[in-house]
This record gives sequence, C-alpha cells and structure tokens, in this order.
Amino acid sequence: MATLLKAAPISQQIVDDLTEECSNLKKKGCTPNLKVILVGEHPPSVIYTRNKKKFMENIGAECEIIKLPQDVKEDEFLKIINELSEDAKVHGLFVQLPLPKHLDHIDVGQLVPPQKDVDGFHAQNLYQLMKGDKGDKALLPCTPKGIMSMLDYADIDLNGKNVVVIGRSMIVGKPLSLLMTNANATVTLCHSRTKGLKKETQKADIIVAAIGKAKFIDSSFLSPQKDQVLIDVGINHDENGKLCGDINEEDVSQSCALLTPVPGGVGKMTIVSLGQNLVAAAKRQMEN
Amino acid sequence: MATLLKAAPISQQIVDDLTEECSNLKKKGCTPNLKVILVGEHPPSVIYTRNKKKFMENIGAECEIIKLPQDVKEDEFLKIINELSEDAKVHGLFVQLPLPKHLDHIDVGQLVPPQKDVDGFHAQNLYQLMKGDKGDKALLPCTPKGIMSMLDYADIDLNGKNVVVIGRSMIVGKPLSLLMTNANATVTLCHSRTKGLKKETQKADIIVAAIGKAKFIDSSFLSPQKDQVLIDVGINHDENGKLCGDINEEDVSQSCALLTPVPGGVGKMTIVSLGQNLVAAAKRQMEN
Repeated sequence: MATLLKAAPISQQIVDDLTEECSNLKKKGCTPNLKVILVGEHPPSVIYTRNKKKFMENIGAECEIIKLPQDVKEDEFLKIINELSEDAKVHGLFVQLPLPKHLDHIDVGQLVPPQKDVDGFHAQNLYQLMKGDKGDKALLPCTPKGIMSMLDYADIDLNGKNVVVIGRSMIVGKPLSLLMTNANATVTLCHSRTKGLKKETQKADIIVAAIGKAKFIDSSFLSPQKDQVLIDVGINHDENGKLCGDINEEDVSQSCALLTPVPGGVGKMTIVSLGQNLVAAAKRQMEN
Repeated sequence: MATLLKAAPISQQIVDDLTEECSNLKKKGCTPNLKVILVGEHPPSVIYTRNKKKFMENIGAECEIIKLPQDVKEDEFLKIINELSEDAKVHGLFVQLPLPKHLDHIDVGQLVPPQKDVDGFHAQNLYQLMKGDKGDKALLPCTPKGIMSMLDYADIDLNGKNVVVIGRSMIVGKPLSLLMTNANATVTLCHSRTKGLKKETQKADIIVAAIGKAKFIDSSFLSPQKDQVLIDVGINHDENGKLCGDINEEDVSQSCALLTPVPGGVGKMTIVSLGQNLVAAAKRQMEN
C-alpha cells in the first residue's frame, strides 16, 4: 500500500517557519506586504484571493485585496499596478487571473517588477530558473516550488533520478522540468503528442501528472517493482462530481511507493510557496 | 552506412534567401546592420568576429566590429552599448565573449534590448521560447535554431519523436529541449548526473550530443534497428589534435541512419542563425 504524501504536515512546518520569519522581519521594521489585484467578482477568484489574504495574515504578513470593477479602464488598471510596483512598502504584487476580456491581452507577469513577482512568472525569474537558480535569486513559480518542497520533506533526493513530467504547460510542466534538471534529475517532458507514454512512465522513478484528465494514470502506467513516486498535480471532477486528480488513486495505491493525494496534496502547496516567495521578496527588498 | 547531414547545402540555401531578403529590405531603405563589440584581442574572438562580419557582408547586410581596449572602463563599455541600443540604425548588437575579468560579472545578454539581441539569450527571448514561440516573435538562440534548420532541411518531423539531448547548458541543451518540446517532440534532457545514459539513447529516435567530450558517443549507445538520427554539437580535439565532435563518427556510421559531421555540421549553422536573426530583427524594427 502506497504511503500518502499529504500537504498538511509540510504546509504546517513551512507556516511555522514563515511565522517566525515574519515576526523577525517585523522587529526590523519590515512587515511583508502583499497586494492582490482582483478585477470583477468572478466567484472562484473571490475565493482564491480571500484564501491568499487569510494565509498571509495567518503567518503575520499583511495582505490587501484591491478590488477593481469588471469594466475598469486599461489605463486606470495599469496606473494602479505601476503605483504599487513603485511603492517601497509593497513587497509582493499579484494579479488574480482570469482578467476580463478587454484586459486579457496584457502579459500580466511582465507588468509586475521581478523582485515583487511572487507568482514567479516574470521573464527575469524564469530566466534565472533556466540558468540554474534554485530560488536564491529568483522567485520560483509556486506550484513547481511546492512540488519541490514536498519531495524535500519526503527526503527524496532527485540526484540521478529518472523523472517523467506529463504536461508541458508554462505553469507547471516546463518550469518544473527545469527545476528538476537543476536538481540533477534526468527529466523526460511528455505531453499530448507523446508516443508510448506508458513506456516512459514505466521506466521512471518519479512521475508527475499535470495533464488535466480525471484519473488518467492507472496502474497500467506503472512498474510495481520500482517503488515509484507519484505526484498528482491534477484538479478535476470525476463522473460523480467528486474532486479528483490525474491519477486513479484507488487503482495505483497497491502499485507505487508514495503518492500525493487529491485533495490535500500539491494543490495545497501553491499558496504555501506564495507565502515563501512573499517573505523572500520582503527580505531581499529590505536588504537592498 | 549513415547519410551525412552536412551544413553546406543548408547554409547555402539560407544564405541565398537572406541575400534576397537583404536586397528587398535595402530597396525599402533599410539595410540590416549588426554591431559586434570586441573587447581586447583574444585571438579566437578576433577570428569569430571577422567571420561574422564576412558572413553579414556576404548576404548584403552591414557589420561593424567595434574594437575596445582590453582595459576599457566599465562605464565606458556600458555607455557604448547603451548608445548602440538606442540607435535606430542598428538592428542587431552582439558582444563577443569572453569579456576580460573586470567586466565578466556583467550579464551581457540582458544589456542588449531583446529586439536587437541577435544572439537570442535575453530573458525576454527565452521567455517567449518557453511560452512556445518558434521564432515568430522571439529571436532564438543561434545553435539550437541552427539544429532545427538542419532537421527541417532533412525533412525530419519532430512530432511524436523521442529525442535525447545530452548536455544541459544554457547555450544548447536547455533552449533546444524547449524548442523541440514546442515542436511536439518528447525530450529527455540528460547530463553528467544521468544514470543509465545508454538506456536513454538506445530508445531515442534522435540523439543530440552537446557534451564536450571527444568521441564520447559510440555505437554501444545506439540501437541499429531504429534508424536513429545523430546530431553532434561537440567541438573537440582528438588525441592527435584533430577537430572532432562528441560522437565517434567512424564507429557509429554503420549503426545509425543520419549523422551530422564535425567539422562541417552544426558548428557551421550558428552564424547562419545569427544572420537569420539579424534580418528578422531588421524587418521587425522597420515594421514598428
């Protein structure tokens, strides 16, 4: 039976660390400060931004949700972002997506200056990642960073490991492949056009599923004798409307060594990474 | 016996195209213009920059080598780059590496504005590449771009192919992996810490060797029944001081379908890509 690698204890440990760091930073007169821009009232976005605020306040950081009307003019939107970018009291700036149609041509990741880009998708941050940075200079994309935190917690050394990442998105697949390559893993990046996917996954030590298809990976993709580690990045609904991942948890649980559950796995780590990025950003800005 | 995929006919075809494009651009009052900054008199650098000038003039572009003394002051060096960056008559700007010690802390790729970065290593260009751009917006890194030109000329469709890239450098391995992923190949990025390299290469349709070890890849890395394509990026010297690649050409030639030679292969394509980038940069700057 596979061990379940749950986010809760990892998250708790990081939250404790961040709380202490915030407390230390406050003593030095610097309270990490995140501004979240929310345009309109898209219900999931309202929930996501609320969760971010709750998380940041819980660790002792400040977080303000700046609500803009659905029909905010582009120049007004850009003006607000520019002001916050220049405000030395603001350490992190996050624009909640999706934006309304009239704004969605804007490459939001490039508007926020790299040192405040707690989301980790500014060209400069991805460039540093590509160059081999492990987060010392760059702010890393949150979900890939969260996956690395989970592997680290579980004491899984990537050095020399064969990893198959399924899904080549900018949010997960591509940056995670680079991060894992930098950590000395041999990464095969698979996707919808991959031929012989099962052959790839069967030879892997670690499989990361970021496909977006409910329960796509079952035991036929695995090599039970290999003690494989399965990381599930999917957030889908099954035929009964129940939340599930890209991995068929029930089917694989006898055939792998370690498995991240959905819910309660990778999904919970993204906000934790955002908190780490905010505290790192505040520290670095204070030091400069 | 493997077919040799030589650069010469590919280069010639691209040179013909570029010559025509330069001629058309000139008629519109825009002669593609490259400035190459050469600091000091490092002999290989002198040769490289001279070759660039020759190539650009051959296609009908302008190219000036700006020679700066070995002990040029940092602020003077930066001032010259800034002036050229802002000069609308200059379409491409290239700083020949290596720089002298007192300047080598400068991240040169980020000094040149992305639209003039014919070398293709500005964060913005790599970001576009990561996002899936195939060179329509971005200027792509020259060696990876040259490899894609060779595969294209040889009518090798990457869609669904298994590619093993050996070497994870910023110059070749990482950007090439992304380019090939964008072209729907399934890429495994191998490196010095990879375990079981032969297993990886034996299952590949295409192997790219960018290792920097003379004749490292021999027939024991191959699967003769697979009709494998071998791309050799290495430029080394063998035990007799003779130029050779990362692939043992003699040993593999009975065991693969197609092979790029060294010399006369990938190495010759880098400057061709630089020419393509310069002409593309001139066109885009003229249109804006």
